[in-house]
This record gives sequence, structure tokens and C-alpha cells, in this order.
Amino acid sequence: MEEKIDPWGSIQIKDYEETIEKFGIEEIGEVMDSLPKENSMFERKIIYGHRDFGKFLKAVNEGKDFAMMTGMMPSGKFHFGHKLVADMIKYFQDIGADIYVAVADIEAYLTRDISLEESRQIALKEYLKNYIALGIDVENMNFYFQSEGTTNYNKMSKLFSKNVTHNELKAVYGDINPGKTVSVLTQAADILLPQFEENGGPKHVVVPVGIDQDPHIRLTRDIAYRFKEQNFIKPSSIYTKFMRGLKGGKMSSSDPKSHISLDDSIEEAKKKIDSAKTGGKQSLKEHRKKGADVEEDVVFELLAFHLIEDRERIKQIYREYDSGDMLSGELKQIAKDKIEVFLEEHHKKLDEAEKKVEELFPQD
Amino acid sequence: MEEKIDPWGSIQIKDYEETIEKFGIEEIGEVMDSLPKENSMFERKIIYGHRDFGKFLKAVNEGKDFAMMTGMMPSGKFHFGHKLVADMIKYFQDIGADIYVAVADIEAYLTRDISLEESRQIALKEYLKNYIALGIDVENMNFYFQSEGTTNYNKMSKLFSKNVTHNELKAVYGDINPGKTVSVLTQAADILLPQFEENGGPKHVVVPVGIDQDPHIRLTRDIAYRFKEQNFIKPSSIYTKFMRGLKGGKMSSSDPKSHISLDDSIEEAKKKIDSAKTGGKQSLKEHRKKGADVEEDVVFELLAFHLIEDRERIKQIYREYDSGDMLSGELKQIAKDKIEVFLEEHHKKLDEAEKKVEELFPQD
Repeated sequence: MEEKIDPWGSIQIKDYEETIEKFGIEEIGEVMDSLPKENSMFERKIIYGHRDFGKFLKAVNEGKDFAMMTGMMPSGKFHFGHKLVADMIKYFQDIGADIYVAVADIEAYLTRDISLEESRQIALKEYLKNYIALGIDVENMNFYFQSEGTTNYNKMSKLFSKNVTHNELKAVYGDINPGKTVSVLTQAADILLPQFEENGGPKHVVVPVGIDQDPHIRLTRDIAYRFKEQNFIKPSSIYTKFMRGLKGGKMSSSDPKSHISLDDSIEEAKKKIDSAKTGGKQSLKEHRKKGADVEEDVVFELLAFHLIEDRERIKQIYREYDSGDMLSGELKQIAKDKIEVFLEEHHKKLDEAEKKVEELFPQD
Repeated sequence: MEEKIDPWGSIQIKDYEETIEKFGIEEIGEVMDSLPKENSMFERKIIYGHRDFGKFLKAVNEGKDFAMMTGMMPSGKFHFGHKLVADMIKYFQDIGADIYVAVADIEAYLTRDISLEESRQIALKEYLKNYIALGIDVENMNFYFQSEGTTNYNKMSKLFSKNVTHNELKAVYGDINPGKTVSVLTQAADILLPQFEENGGPKHVVVPVGIDQDPHIRLTRDIAYRFKEQNFIKPSSIYTKFMRGLKGGKMSSSDPKSHISLDDSIEEAKKKIDSAKTGGKQSLKEHRKKGADVEEDVVFELLAFHLIEDRERIKQIYREYDSGDMLSGELKQIAKDKIEVFLEEHHKKLDEAEKKVEELFPQD
């Protein structure tokens, strides 16, 4: 029996290769040559798997219309885990994709008991503000709230209910209730929105997700195939690794100790790095002899995912840390230096971005 | 255990009093004195039961805002069964209610496989046209398609999903699937729409239904009570008898022999009356002796429900037929005379009404 993943639960993945096999997704390696523009997220296997991303890239390279869609579940502070998604939006926007960003306020209300107003404030004052500061052209993307979808968007999500059975939802999600049913159908409408007639009809769309969101992808691909009133191209997906929390375990928006927020002060950020879980050995002697367990090191992850773009430099750090030549303290010092530079610059951009958000949403 | 009624199945009621007891609805008699205007549908117990209709009438008599809401499942020809609903719309419009009429095109699509376009055509060219011909002021009512609901209407129907559990839907409806779940939530939004903020907030609303629709009423009353984001008054309901088909059995839009359509020719209508099931006895001798079984007579039903407004006249016919003084053939002759007058007039009005519909919906 296929293993079930609950997109409303929490998840931690130890072995991504196992995930690939278990869920029948493809390794990213095969399609990397077709990328129109290099990117460290692909190169470093932060994006490690996909469904139909080859077909998507083929359409891109043939000059066809294409889009990237993502949803945000607004909760707490915008942290480095969220930055990963923002980096992907930026990448796809740079290569010419139409960008769709759904604020999953309906889903947050139904599955996490977050009010629509709370979702709205977090979406605008955390996410959108950081998107702007990270260089995303938010005025040239379709940024919307699920609760404010158009008549056609709502109509489509209702019609989709005919294309899934209760047993199917149960098989995919385990436990199911009316709120989850509505969430799933709303998400299907989000994912297929770039292909609705008002948006130019069928096109290749990629959705970057964590493996926990794969049930939504699979179900939406089935709906796309089964729906008779309009043609859809099955949406593509790419799968990103989860950033681990600073103490190991899960990175969580609601636990400030598990993450560095992009508006944390430089001092706070450095403190968090200092107390982060490393892959260093117990004793200096052992470390020098056996080297660090780099894959277990969340500080290295922070460097590789976000703070060091230079390919040779990150490889060099890996080698030195892996061999034991570099100590955890030294690695942390690199991270602290890098994060200081990043945050100093980013905080300035946040101030400007805040004004932009106020301009775009003057009532909020 | 409470008996289940499937609103998507077919239903025939033998004993309405039993229904009242079984489903815990109130007899209409108690509240009839509060009616602001007499009406034969109440007097003849065509409307035989209610929930909270007393509270509704109290609000009416106190001069508060009030509304009447009904939905139509567009299918086939507009017949005398549908006219009953139209008569109720007219009654409530006359006493000053805001009228809401939802075309249940989403429900028809999800539960009966009828396309939205087909629903639209039937709704406009059968139902709306006949409403106009029957004297309803359609320009002063909220007539809308479920598929074209506003953003807020759609938002609310999604939010409502949090107020019901899967087991509850199962207990109320028996078998349940995503399409039914969406239908139910959409109907809840229809029933509560008159109370949404854009429509002036909480008010008393009555929904005339057959007992088969009672599950929707009960569930929506529960949702109204449970929903936290806005206050609602639990909607009231009144329960109408079902007109039986001309051959006995069920009156069905899809079976022309079971009903007289309001655009049937006078000749056709008379033919249908001639072959209708009566309550007359086998032999003349037996009939004269025992009298007719009036309650079983669908022609008498047609007269009482639609063709004879005069209270004394219908009582007289009942007595004569019941005693055996009047024969089935004589009863049918009365019905044929009456329907000729009605249809002749109505067909003229339909011609005018057709132009009005074209004016209101020029693209259809």
C-alpha cells in the first residue's frame, strides 16, 4: 500500500531518495540540462524531485506561455524556510513565467482556525513585504486571497467536486471532513487557475511544493484529466527539501527558536546561530579525526540554502568541514558574518517594501 | 432512530400528519391566525406544516424586514407542481417580503448531470417566463444562478464547511460524496443569503419546501446557529404537499404524461385530464352509493390546488363528489372548463413574458 502523507500534519524527511521512490516522483537530475537559467536550488538538490517538469521546461524552451503557481498558508513570521519559496518565485519570474500566488486564507480558516483578517494581515505585512524586499515584482504577478476569488474561480472549485469521490479523498488524505473537502477543492482551483479561460486557457504550470503537499498535486492532476467542461494540461510540480529547525526537528513559524525570521535583529540572528544544532563532533580530537556530520548541520544548511551563492566557496566549506579541518565554531562564524551582511541590507529593503505594501493595500 | 429523507431521491407521501410527527415539524393550523393576508394554500392545508413560521409572522406583523427564499432545480417543462411554488412567491411578494430565487444550477450539475447552460435556458425560458406570466414582479426580486454567486456568497458557503462534520452529513443524507457536500454548502449559502451583510444582515426568512428538502433546512438552521463570524436568525420553513402525477404516482418534469405543463395546448391538457386517475368507483351504482374517494382524485387536487379559488365552490364540489352525487366525468368536465379559461389567458401572458425575458437577458 502506498504510504499516506497528511498535508495538514507535520512532516520531517530523513531520506529524500526514499521519498522519490515511495511516491513515484522523478529525480530532478534528468531535467536539469533543460533549465533556461542555472540556479543553485537545482544544482544543490534543494529541489530534488519533480512530476512532469521536463514537459514544463520543454514548453518554456519552445517559447510557449507558462506559469508558476504557489500558495502561502500565512502563519507567524516570514523566515528562511519561506525565503526558499520566494527565491523560487523570483527564479520563475526571471525566466518569464506568469506568477500566481494564492493566500490560503480559506484553508487557514478551515484547517487551522486562523481568521481571514489575521491571514490577510500576515500575508501582506510579512509575506508580501518580504517578497518585495527579495526583489520579486509583485505588481506583475497575480496575488490573491482564496476568500476573494472571482465568480469563475469559485464556480470551478465547485464543479471539480464532481470529479472526485469521497473514498478517493479518504485514500489520499486519511481522515476527511467537509472543511478539508472544501480546502482541497479550493486548492485545485488555485492550481488550475492559470489555465482558466480568463487567464488564456491551457498552459504548462509548475507548482513548487514540499512532499507533504503532494496529495494536493496528485488529486489536482487527476481532476485536470477528468474535468470535461474545459481542457487542462496536468500541472507539473517540483519538490523542495524542508529546512530543518535550528535545534534540529521541524522549522516552525510559531516557534521563534526554531527559525531565523527575516526581520530578526542581527544580534538575535547571531545568537540563534550560536545555539543552533551542528554536525560537529563531541570532542575536538574526534572532530579533527572523523570530520563533521555535514548533512546534520543546520548552519551549513543555512549557508547552502541561502547565504552562499558561490559554487566553489560552498564546496570548499563542505570539504573542510567534512574533513574536520573546519570546526563548528568556525562554520558558525562564517554564517554570522554572512547573515549580518544579508540582514543589514534586507532590513533596509523591508522599510521601503513596507511603504510599497501600504501603497498597494491602503486600507490595511 | 429518526427516519432519513433523501433530497436527491424521489418521494411520495401518503400521510402528511405522520410526516409532521416523524420529523418534528409543527402543524400549520396554530399560526394561521397571524397571516397578514388570507390564502387558499394555507386554508386548504396545501401548506400543512412549518418550523418557526410563527416567529416569522410575528416579525412580519411587527413591521420588521423579512424575506422569502426559494430555489429551483431546473428540469423540463414548467408544470402545475411548479406553479405552486410560483403562487407562494407571489403571495410573499404581495405581503412585502424581499424575494430570493436561486437557480440551483450547481446542484443540478453535481447531482443530476445537467450542464450549467442547460439549467440556464430552462430557468429563463420555462421558470422565469412563467413567473412573469403568473404576476410575479421579477424585476423586484433577487433572481440569481448559484454558479454566478458573488465573492461573498462563495466565501460564506466555504466557511460554513467548518460548521458541519462528515458524520453529520452522513446521518442527515445517508450516502455522501464531495459533490453532495458542495451542493449542501451552496444551498446553506442560498438560504442564509438574505441575512448576509450586503443584504442588510439578520432577518426572518421563510423557505417553502417539500418535506424531501427538510434535511437542507435542518442543517442550515444548525449552521446558522453555529456560525461565529456573523449572527443569523434560524431560517423558518413551511412544508407543502406534493402534487401527485396525473396517473397517480409521482409528478415528474421529465414525464409529460405525469403532468400538465403550463404551455400545453388546451386540447392536450383536456386529454390529460380525461385520462387522469380519479377517485371514482368502479360502477355507477357503487359510486352513487359510497361516493368518490376524493383524497385519491388527482383531478380534484388540480381544482383545489390551482383552478378554483372560491372557498364555497370547492367545498361544494368536495361534498357532491364525496357523496356520490357528482360523477368523475362531471368533475373532469369542471376541470376541463376551468383549465381552458386558465390556459387561454396564461398563454397570452406567456407571449408577453417571453419578450420580457428577452429584454432582461438579451444574450440568452
